[in-house]
Amino acid sequence: MSRPVIAVLNGPNLNLLGERQPEVYGSETLADLERRCVAHADGLGCDVDFRQSNHEGDLVSMIQELRRSAGVVINAGAYTHTSIAIRDALALVQGPIIEVHISNVHAREGFRQHSYLSDVATGVIVGCGTLGYELALSAIASKLDGGVG
Amino acid sequence: MSRPVIAVLNGPNLNLLGERQPEVYGSETLADLERRCVAHADGLGCDVDFRQSNHEGDLVSMIQELRRSAGVVINAGAYTHTSIAIRDALALVQGPIIEVHISNVHAREGFRQHSYLSDVATGVIVGCGTLGYELALSAIASKLDGGVG
Amino acid sequence: MSRPVIAVLNGPNLNLLGERQPEVYGSETLADLERRCVAHADGLGCDVDFRQSNHEGDLVSMIQELRRSAGVVINAGAYTHTSIAIRDALALVQGPIIEVHISNVHAREGFRQHSYLSDVATGVIVGCGTLGYELALSAIASKLDGGVG
Amino acid sequence: MSRPVIAVLNGPNLNLLGERQPEVYGSETLADLERRCVAHADGLGCDVDFRQSNHEGDLVSMIQELRRSAGVVINAGAYTHTSIAIRDALALVQGPIIEVHISNVHAREGFRQHSYLSDVATGVIVGCGTLGYELALSAIASKLDGGVG
Amino acid sequence: MSRPVIAVLNGPNLNLLGERQPEVYGSETLADLERRCVAHADGLGCDVDFRQSNHEGDLVSMIQELRRSAGVVINAGAYTHTSIAIRDALALVQGPIIEVHISNVHAREGFRQHSYLSDVATGVIVGCGTLGYELALSAIASKLDGGVG
Amino acid sequence: MSRPVIAVLNGPNLNLLGERQPEVYGSETLADLERRCVAHADGLGCDVDFRQSNHEGDLVSMIQELRRSAGVVINAGAYTHTSIAIRDALALVQGPIIEVHISNVHAREGFRQHSYLSDVATGVIVGCGTLGYELALSAIASKLDGGVG
Amino acid sequence: MSRPVIAVLNGPNLNLLGERQPEVYGSETLADLERRCVAHADGLGCDVDFRQSNHEGDLVSMIQELRRSAGVVINAGAYTHTSIAIRDALALVQGPIIEVHISNVHAREGFRQHSYLSDVATGVIVGCGTLGYELALSAIASKLDGGVG
Amino acid sequence: MSRPVIAVLNGPNLNLLGERQPEVYGSETLADLERRCVAHADGLGCDVDFRQSNHEGDLVSMIQELRRSAGVVINAGAYTHTSIAIRDALALVQGPIIEVHISNVHAREGFRQHSYLSDVATGVIVGCGTLGYELALSAIASKLDGGVG
Amino acid sequence: MSRPVIAVLNGPNLNLLGERQPEVYGSETLADLERRCVAHADGLGCDVDFRQSNHEGDLVSMIQELRRSAGVVINAGAYTHTSIAIRDALALVQGPIIEVHISNVHAREGFRQHSYLSDVATGVIVGCGTLGYELALSAIASKLDGGVG
Amino acid sequence: MSRPVIAVLNGPNLNLLGERQPEVYGSETLADLERRCVAHADGLGCDVDFRQSNHEGDLVSMIQELRRSAGVVINAGAYTHTSIAIRDALALVQGPIIEVHISNVHAREGFRQHSYLSDVATGVIVGCGTLGYELALSAIASKLDGGVG
Amino acid sequence: MSRPVIAVLNGPNLNLLGERQPEVYGSETLADLERRCVAHADGLGCDVDFRQSNHEGDLVSMIQELRRSAGVVINAGAYTHTSIAIRDALALVQGPIIEVHISNVHAREGFRQHSYLSDVATGVIVGCGTLGYELALSAIASKLDGGVG
Amino acid sequence: MSRPVIAVLNGPNLNLLGERQPEVYGSETLADLERRCVAHADGLGCDVDFRQSNHEGDLVSMIQELRRSAGVVINAGAYTHTSIAIRDALALVQGPIIEVHISNVHAREGFRQHSYLSDVATGVIVGCGTLGYELALSAIASKLDGGVG
Repeated sequence: MSRPVIAVLNGPNLNLLGERQPEVYGSETLADLERRCVAHADGLGCDVDFRQSNHEGDLVSMIQELRRSAGVVINAGAYTHTSIAIRDALALVQGPIIEVHISNVHAREGFRQHSYLSDVATGVIVGCGTLGYELALSAIASKLDGGVG
Repeated sequence: MSRPVIAVLNGPNLNLLGERQPEVYGSETLADLERRCVAHADGLGCDVDFRQSNHEGDLVSMIQELRRSAGVVINAGAYTHTSIAIRDALALVQGPIIEVHISNVHAREGFRQHSYLSDVATGVIVGCGTLGYELALSAIASKLDGGVG
Repeated sequence: MSRPVIAVLNGPNLNLLGERQPEVYGSETLADLERRCVAHADGLGCDVDFRQSNHEGDLVSMIQELRRSAGVVINAGAYTHTSIAIRDALALVQGPIIEVHISNVHAREGFRQHSYLSDVATGVIVGCGTLGYELALSAIASKLDGGVG
Repeated sequence: MSRPVIAVLNGPNLNLLGERQPEVYGSETLADLERRCVAHADGLGCDVDFRQSNHEGDLVSMIQELRRSAGVVINAGAYTHTSIAIRDALALVQGPIIEVHISNVHAREGFRQHSYLSDVATGVIVGCGTLGYELALSAIASKLDGGVG
Repeated sequence: MSRPVIAVLNGPNLNLLGERQPEVYGSETLADLERRCVAHADGLGCDVDFRQSNHEGDLVSMIQELRRSAGVVINAGAYTHTSIAIRDALALVQGPIIEVHISNVHAREGFRQHSYLSDVATGVIVGCGTLGYELALSAIASKLDGGVG
Repeated sequence: MSRPVIAVLNGPNLNLLGERQPEVYGSETLADLERRCVAHADGLGCDVDFRQSNHEGDLVSMIQELRRSAGVVINAGAYTHTSIAIRDALALVQGPIIEVHISNVHAREGFRQHSYLSDVATGVIVGCGTLGYELALSAIASKLDGGVG
Repeated sequence: MSRPVIAVLNGPNLNLLGERQPEVYGSETLADLERRCVAHADGLGCDVDFRQSNHEGDLVSMIQELRRSAGVVINAGAYTHTSIAIRDALALVQGPIIEVHISNVHAREGFRQHSYLSDVATGVIVGCGTLGYELALSAIASKLDGGVG
Repeated sequence: MSRPVIAVLNGPNLNLLGERQPEVYGSETLADLERRCVAHADGLGCDVDFRQSNHEGDLVSMIQELRRSAGVVINAGAYTHTSIAIRDALALVQGPIIEVHISNVHAREGFRQHSYLSDVATGVIVGCGTLGYELALSAIASKLDGGVG
Repeated sequence: MSRPVIAVLNGPNLNLLGERQPEVYGSETLADLERRCVAHADGLGCDVDFRQSNHEGDLVSMIQELRRSAGVVINAGAYTHTSIAIRDALALVQGPIIEVHISNVHAREGFRQHSYLSDVATGVIVGCGTLGYELALSAIASKLDGGVG
Repeated sequence: MSRPVIAVLNGPNLNLLGERQPEVYGSETLADLERRCVAHADGLGCDVDFRQSNHEGDLVSMIQELRRSAGVVINAGAYTHTSIAIRDALALVQGPIIEVHISNVHAREGFRQHSYLSDVATGVIVGCGTLGYELALSAIASKLDGGVG
Repeated sequence: MSRPVIAVLNGPNLNLLGERQPEVYGSETLADLERRCVAHADGLGCDVDFRQSNHEGDLVSMIQELRRSAGVVINAGAYTHTSIAIRDALALVQGPIIEVHISNVHAREGFRQHSYLSDVATGVIVGCGTLGYELALSAIASKLDGGVG
Repeated sequence: MSRPVIAVLNGPNLNLLGERQPEVYGSETLADLERRCVAHADGLGCDVDFRQSNHEGDLVSMIQELRRSAGVVINAGAYTHTSIAIRDALALVQGPIIEVHISNVHAREGFRQHSYLSDVATGVIVGCGTLGYELALSAIASKLDGGVG
């Protein structure tokens, strides 16, 4: 019997994770992060479908394609603040959605305070570094297990 | 050698957790939640100092008293959106701070979209139910272990 | 068989009723007002639990304690305009809630035009002087009698 | 010696009271309400001049005509939020003015939160159903009797 | 068996259609437009009750009178942007409502960008000239025939 | 040969000129003012068509009827601040339009600072008392004589 | 002699028409809709070039490619509210442009109230379901025939 | 016995009257205008002290120097919209003040809609061309004669 | 004969003066500051009643209790920006009130730019360090001596 | 050895101190105030360079000239609220800067609530009358002596 | 030794340069412009990597790819006003960045007044036509030569 | 035959160029900059009339005096953000106008984001250091030579 698959989607500029402002984002690369997510999900009995794109339209299409997966972890990067199209795609997702930001967006520019995604997401995890991805996977696994709240 | 202590602080109306809008907040009581936090922290090698008050001034004083603890998890409830005094107290805390909200505040009234606390916190976890407290404890423990940010 | 009890809650500075701006608020004291409320409620077949506090947290706790009373009359004074915590506590009340203001807040400073309480209250009575408390008690009694909405 | 006359003025769409959203406004018609107001005023030793119009200009003219009556109860309906002309007419009224809304306008659309009339009125009664008209008549009678403010 | 009647209501200054800014509104008069609507509706198996007034209150009363017609096409002219009373009357209408504007209001002054009517209407047709009335009649007829969407 | 006719139009509550806030508006009545306008216009070789209404719709219709007069002096009272319909009617007027306000609206409530009429008028005269009507007539006569702009 | 071609362009998430919120958008698929548009246009003597993309840049390029077609019907979905690039491309189109929305965007979230496209479009049709596409094609055909307005 | 002196003050760029946008301001020069004002004032039994400066500070000093004159006519040009210092100086003036603008500022850029001067002035005359200066002198003379309003 | 007493009231987090951001607030403790105030007041012939609380309600009650003292110096800390209740209590004070802030609040976060207290205070002293308390005592003493305002 | 010199700069309309609104500003003239400042500074071991201008540009030049003085006391009058040029000049000053306002600007018009100068100043003293200048000189002298905070 | 390469990046609709509003943008094509840039850069001792895309995601990827070039000239067209993703990519660039707009965006629609790019750019050149590209290349070359800032 | 003269105008505080924030503005003085401009213009076949003033009124007068020069380069410093008078004077200039700012104003305080001058200028060059003056002179010379766009 197949294991549940959790989509982990990454938006623009996250392909350069580890290079861009390492004092903010750490030196881990996106490939490192994918490995950690796969391992963490495995411990939760889940598989991960891990992707990245710089294109808003690709992210829309990915979400559409994966809308029946067990859950979605999404770090939409800058599109978080500008994309109603990604929001509309997320509204098609049947399982829980956790929005993740590596840095504390609330301590940055004013235009990063508003997310078009948060109110269609189930939960949001901000400022916990790349650990936030693991926390998000745990939160989705807990929902799948019938966890409260 | 004493174990690190993480303060877990709860604001107004959280003393009625389990009664207030159970469809939103679940049926777990605050005492149940305290037990879960203690157990989860124990697994992380930490102790928990778990408190609640309906008074803004009490929360200010608690934060002052506990400002040298290993970290702070705070769900300031409604004071999140109105209290600069709690923000100023949090600015005194030396360790990491994780702001937690049980429900997805981004999907509620407009006045719940703004937090006076988020930009002085290290991270924010929203909408993950009471599991959010455990995720927050994990995030703090990870920071204490030198985890990447 | 016990009579229904209506909570009448008063916020900050109302303990000085009769001294503060008597041209606005009249010369009646809070004790005088309590006597009038008790007498008026008695005529409606109800008892009154009449309280005052300068503390936002006390008002939250009072509302929690009295949340199963037959109804609540609340003049939260200045906290009307700043307290989401009192709003959240009122959302726990099962019976009708009437928000009262002695003076016409709409003819005063701009920051008194907005109330965090009005949309979780059943009704609002403004600018009718201390008679407003009696009108509020009548409105609650009418609701208890199945009065039209 | 003639009894004091209190004007009770109703604005647009109130002629359909009892039909329009009965779950909000009840099933009482405007004629029923007029009968209740006449009876209640009679108990207070007053007569009532009860009118309705869908025309802003009619309401202005009615208020002008009745500006020397003992007091005015006005439910200007939607014109509450858009008519400075009615406000200016009310400023000509010598006796007390009570603004009434049957439903709780504060729990409805944003554009119903602002009234052009409230700060030229003596008091405002909101969300007490059609009982609000009787409470308003009582408030005016109390003012006429020299009641405290 | 009587045919369905669709109300077509016109607001202020539309009585001068054909004279006012013909480069914007064309040279057709309101009588011409009525004839076209009658003919078009006839082709759809419907009758038309076509009216105009410069008075907001008249438009409220007309809508009340015609609230049980098969549908309403309304071009409220300038009242579109200022009248909550017309909005409230439209909320009484049982059939579909199509709001029409002859010119493209979105390309004009800022105060014409907001309509108090659009969110209580079923649909809105803007900038299609007087053809917009015919399209609106078709849209209503389609709804009456159980048309999708 | 007939003399040019200047329309002088007055909005809501101006029928009570002389009674309403005489310290602001003076004790002259509207009939007095009409006589002064007639006399002043006569000195300028013009006739006056002087009207008043409390109805927005009447003012729209009056402007339509008089849109080919030599000029329009309009004191739309409270409708100045709320009526796009009057604005649209004024846009049909061929001759010069002078907007008049007896009192200095700029020294009153914030909502009187904005006029929907001023930018479709030729000029505006504010705070010159009822003399403002005479100045407006002079300004129109000057325009008719080819006076510099 | 070739027939005029009308471009019909669809934005993000419209590829899932029929699945996404069928209670809002109906159960018709985009292929169904294309067939209806082709048939309707055929009745008007026109051909249709019907496309969809989730990419903002693709929509820009499509509009550029089709800028000399007889007219454009565009439902840009979420990009309606965020894309100045699509607006700029539409400004290159020589024929009439009709913006279409299947649902009534005015009755949805605040951020859907503003369109970057409407003031460069010729007309807008909202809330008429998928019939709106046919109405839009009719409006364009009418313009091509020299229709008024 | 000396005649009353009315100050006529002109702000920045008015020294180029007649050259700057003659289609807006006419071809009359400031010297022409001064002659007309002197003549008109003479007919009213008054003298004129006519000045211009491009310096905000000069205008402040001029107003201070002339604050005991019979009245002030001021066209502060662009400083109208930016100078609180000129406003404060005008508040020292004992006689009536008429603010004049040659063009209709309400029909120009948004930043010309607000005047720091209007609410400390007695009256405002806008869009009457240079005739506005004569009307302003008449208004002041009327005030000096005890004119109403 | 008793000497005048000046209340010196301190709000939340000021109990940690000397520890919190010493580069901003200096290393002086609140006890040090109290001693300086007592000594400085003594030189002015006055006594000091020096208090601190983290509770908004306590500050309200303190002000009520001390409302007949010779004057009030208040540093309400974060409550400056959020407390209408403290503002209302200050409005009961009969003597002069000087609001003090140790740091320059104008050079800090935007939400520290607005004070609910300043317009009911007599004066405000900002950014003068703890010396500001002494300056405030001098200002009150000067007022008591009939000093010019 | 020369004593430190403190610049005391006064903006527009302060040359009329003692005449302008004496109930607000007192009857002391600017020359009186200069004498008081000189005497007070002398007691602190300092000299004063006391100046006034109605010109924004003069104040910029004065600040530039005096930018190496021991400190600057500035009451920029109305330019406080409108001059970025004075702000930029103050940013060149090396010593402490105290902004002074004689009246309580916070209790006046809204446009006096914002200062372009406060966040580049060291401190601000408001509403302490002309005593405020002496307090400002004391504050600067204290800074020069190495005073805390 | 290789010469420095300056990236010149062009956003949506610039591929149609020369066709789109030639009265605004001139008749030069993008290929013409590329040739001018290559020639101008050659004179400065630099090479140019000249690209265009209608896709936001492509521009993000191009900037990432070219982030180590000697400098970047970017005309992001409409994405200037909507793309935080491009901004974030530009923040990765090591050399100087000059933002260019051919037309004067400040004289166009309000939504073109704000750029997400300007504050992460080194400089901005607006309204100098296509010459602006050459000026930008000169500015970058000057920076590379250690030119003053 | 005389060469074209380009005016180069400098606003407040630019007389201290080289002293004020050299890390932002460089160490070049205004005299140095004038020499560079003269030399650069000479290479373009033009002369320069280079001036500076701290007075807004002087800048207005300078622009008036030089309004027929071949072009204007203006760095109005702080007056950029506050002066409508300078804007109005610039509107009199016949040749091209380039607004220059040495630093990147977009990366500074919010109040520096808006310029009253940009939309009456031909172009704007920001953040290119003092080189921006030379680029501006080149841009004007190019316009004089009939350069594109």
